Amino acid sequence: MSDFRKSKAWSALAAHAKKLAPQHIKDLFTEDPDRSNWGTITAAGLTLDISKNRVTRQTIDLLSALATERQVTVERDRMYAGEQVNGTEARAALHMALRGEGAAGAAITQASEAKARFLDFARRINADNSSQSHKHIDRIIHIGIGGSDLGPRLVQATLGTADQAQVHFVANIDPHELNVALDGADPAATLFIVVSKSFTTQETVENAKSAKAWLEANLPAAQNANNQFVAVTENTKAAASFGITPGRIFPFGDGVGGRFSVWSSVGLTLAITLGEDAFKEFLSGAAEMDRHFLVSPLERNLPVLLALVGVWNRNFLGIGSHAVLPYSQRLALLPSYLQQLEMESNGKSVRRNAEPANVETAPAIWGAAGTTGQHAFYQWLHQGTDLASCDIILAFGGTGQNQHNQDILVANGIAQAESLAFGRDRQATEAALAEEGLSEAEITRLAPHRTFQGNRPVTVISMDRLEPRTLGALLALYEHKVFTQGILWDINSFDQWGVELGKNLAGGVLKAITGDGPVEGFDPSTRRLINAARQTRTKTTRED
Amino acid sequence: MSDFRKSKAWSALAAHAKKLAPQHIKDLFTEDPDRSNWGTITAAGLTLDISKNRVTRQTIDLLSALATERQVTVERDRMYAGEQVNGTEARAALHMALRGEGAAGAAITQASEAKARFLDFARRINADNSSQSHKHIDRIIHIGIGGSDLGPRLVQATLGTADQAQVHFVANIDPHELNVALDGADPAATLFIVVSKSFTTQETVENAKSAKAWLEANLPAAQNANNQFVAVTENTKAAASFGITPGRIFPFGDGVGGRFSVWSSVGLTLAITLGEDAFKEFLSGAAEMDRHFLVSPLERNLPVLLALVGVWNRNFLGIGSHAVLPYSQRLALLPSYLQQLEMESNGKSVRRNAEPANVETAPAIWGAAGTTGQHAFYQWLHQGTDLASCDIILAFGGTGQNQHNQDILVANGIAQAESLAFGRDRQATEAALAEEGLSEAEITRLAPHRTFQGNRPVTVISMDRLEPRTLGALLALYEHKVFTQGILWDINSFDQWGVELGKNLAGGVLKAITGDGPVEGFDPSTRRLINAARQTRTKTTRED
Repeated sequence: MSDFRKSKAWSALAAHAKKLAPQHIKDLFTEDPDRSNWGTITAAGLTLDISKNRVTRQTIDLLSALATERQVTVERDRMYAGEQVNGTEARAALHMALRGEGAAGAAITQASEAKARFLDFARRINADNSSQSHKHIDRIIHIGIGGSDLGPRLVQATLGTADQAQVHFVANIDPHELNVALDGADPAATLFIVVSKSFTTQETVENAKSAKAWLEANLPAAQNANNQFVAVTENTKAAASFGITPGRIFPFGDGVGGRFSVWSSVGLTLAITLGEDAFKEFLSGAAEMDRHFLVSPLERNLPVLLALVGVWNRNFLGIGSHAVLPYSQRLALLPSYLQQLEMESNGKSVRRNAEPANVETAPAIWGAAGTTGQHAFYQWLHQGTDLASCDIILAFGGTGQNQHNQDILVANGIAQAESLAFGRDRQATEAALAEEGLSEAEITRLAPHRTFQGNRPVTVISMDRLEPRTLGALLALYEHKVFTQGILWDINSFDQWGVELGKNLAGGVLKAITGDGPVEGFDPSTRRLINAARQTRTKTTRED
Repeated sequence: MSDFRKSKAWSALAAHAKKLAPQHIKDLFTEDPDRSNWGTITAAGLTLDISKNRVTRQTIDLLSALATERQVTVERDRMYAGEQVNGTEARAALHMALRGEGAAGAAITQASEAKARFLDFARRINADNSSQSHKHIDRIIHIGIGGSDLGPRLVQATLGTADQAQVHFVANIDPHELNVALDGADPAATLFIVVSKSFTTQETVENAKSAKAWLEANLPAAQNANNQFVAVTENTKAAASFGITPGRIFPFGDGVGGRFSVWSSVGLTLAITLGEDAFKEFLSGAAEMDRHFLVSPLERNLPVLLALVGVWNRNFLGIGSHAVLPYSQRLALLPSYLQQLEMESNGKSVRRNAEPANVETAPAIWGAAGTTGQHAFYQWLHQGTDLASCDIILAFGGTGQNQHNQDILVANGIAQAESLAFGRDRQATEAALAEEGLSEAEITRLAPHRTFQGNRPVTVISMDRLEPRTLGALLALYEHKVFTQGILWDINSFDQWGVELGKNLAGGVLKAITGDGPVEGFDPSTRRLINAARQTRTKTTRED
């Protein structure tokens, strides 16, 4: 495939961008007061408003033409049909099948059977917990990393309630995280859910081993540590060798990648803590977004529009990073979740056919919950020299408690979207400072520091309420955005070769640190670090 | 002041960058095997290694000349002397005085007296807690946002231990965060520490009011809710009107900005939870870094070098974002802390004299703890189309427990620094794939996907152990880096006008949502959002 920057649709967009670049979002609203109508689309309980981006109707038309040229719908349908869209790994991408969507009948049947099994297990745990005759499980320790961690962690933080069993997530190899999770735990009442597709992920296996050692040291002699474990994995053999009984091993399908796996048995922890009904609602919300993605025309298709606006900001306006700003403390982990989903999927420089990408792919994704972030990095968003595009996510209704503070939260989200896009020009700033009672000399001195250029592109995603259905829809929205961008950039969103190299190298460094391998062969800086680590290690070991 | 891109030092660097740009870090090591010697400098228990950046000795010389040209040492000494380095707000920057450093005698005396007061209070709380005759404080709820939150939250997460009073931090106006903190709390045994320099920060004041309402509803009738409060503020009058007795109000000095305030009474929570000795050690570590910063020559000065390398990556190599990668779960909040410190301080487009900045200022700062981040966004770091510069932070020694996992943690940090810088070229990749047993056809197909360009600039900051002293030194290192970059970019690092606009606007939006103000006057997109929020609100209120 040739350089698609030379294609008809891409060239038209490049030319259009040159014309549009000097325009301010403010002006776009003056020129087309109707833009908030065509720029606002609702599906699956979510409303997307792209009108505060630097786009016109023509931009959307040209971007839709790009999507057509790049065969987005063809590729979408291939994914839906269970074809091998993950070329380098020769796999399908079957996360929609987990939600009951897709034409891949066998995959749906398989997913549905697997789901019945893990939901049944969750039901039994909860039944045991409510009966008086059994030992309670009062703590769940979910051990997994990356895609086996971020999804369950996010959903638990968003939908979990205080009256459930305590849940701890352990991802890091740093022993501190497991130690915190074990603190105060009753071994006989603790369930370890070990999640690793390959069951060879070093962090997860080592943490599971440490957990087992802790159980063996602390359980009453008659009890078997293995009974406190459950495995979620495709490698049933390795889980069995670890000591976990077959009835407690839950596979989730070869075609389900880690960062798309929260819908599968990887969500077992959630099925226990939130209950079966809420977990199914979560899947239904995602399925509703799937159906919308599969049937809606490009220019009214939420995931496609989100993807197109992203490509516009990234490739045609040259904006290098993207901030995720959920106005909800429950969604505080969403930026981390999307960091993986987007950067691991599309942080690539090589096209599907192995040629260089030629265009910028995934931007850096970062962010934090509002209003907290306002008091941290919004200074940079408003007045920094670089632009970031922003997604502001709003859930209008709170829990009903403390409506006043909920109102302030929502008002801030809406106001920030406005001020990032519109800014405050010199004249308005001078008027505001005069109103504050500043002298003319002070106004002249301070006005440049207190002027806000605005023109920061903002997308607003809003919902009435943050609940299982809307959360499911929100995560599926971003999944399909990522898939669509992968097609637009012609990269495989489903592999992750960049995760490998560091892993391989760490083995040699580890041996050198522990004295089981040579320090020679590394560069001088790495050698120095290895030696320093080794010295501290020797001291620590001696002190013990 | 004229455009300093035309200055001698800046021009020399620009010319040098052109020459150096095509060079790979790998080649720099071949050309100068000594680079890890001159590139490694130790002070205050921290070792900085800049040798895995795309710099040569000449680069450092030219950057030092820039620092001299921009009068970094002159400005540093002005800050030290307590002069008004914060021009727009006509204030000094006195965070060094909190650590006992600086020539501003009066400021040091004042800081030292204030410190004696809050340390005494912390001592009394802990004494009460250990005596049998008093009611324990078994939970501290620290209410503050931005600089009144991130520092204490980070230090508590890093140095706190499980046997202390439970500490909760509440920043967000979202009622969820306070609700979580209050869950299961005993009103009579809960201490609320309310931190706000102005005591008008909306989030903090509203959360404090909600806390008070909760106390009044739940305390035994004879007890006064005000006795459960402490205020850390410069506005003693407002704290007193809130109902807090003078003996429980702790000011911290007008010249201490929020993001530089963890060393002051803003750290009261820490003085209680960590104890006086650890808190003083934390200050001492920072003071040691202060002295190093004040006396060391530029090219052996840790904060200056960190700043210079940052400016090199940002302005001369055009790298737009910077990742903070602490290999320590205890430092998981460091990226958020530095996000505020760097982006709020230097995310500005206007010079001190109010002229446009002309050069890029603070990059986007983001990151996560290793090894967790390796399974999230490292794909992008290794193989994305954009480069990020990285700080990898290593604490070699763990707690002594689980040395094996600690070894793996450290090995990964060292190995990632190596692989980001050196990468793995096509040839080495093909050899590695052959070793995996892949066929020639597969090697040809996969090698481009599995090649790593490397050449990502990495700075490594290492220490033997993460403890109060080294944490203090680490945070002071970054403070002085930020100050130095502010001078290099000629911006005021100590104001934050960008935080204001959204605040002002939110008032109008809030009134419109609650029906107390007009919806007209806002743009159509904002009007639509306000109306949607209003509708949901009406439904919620009716359901209640």
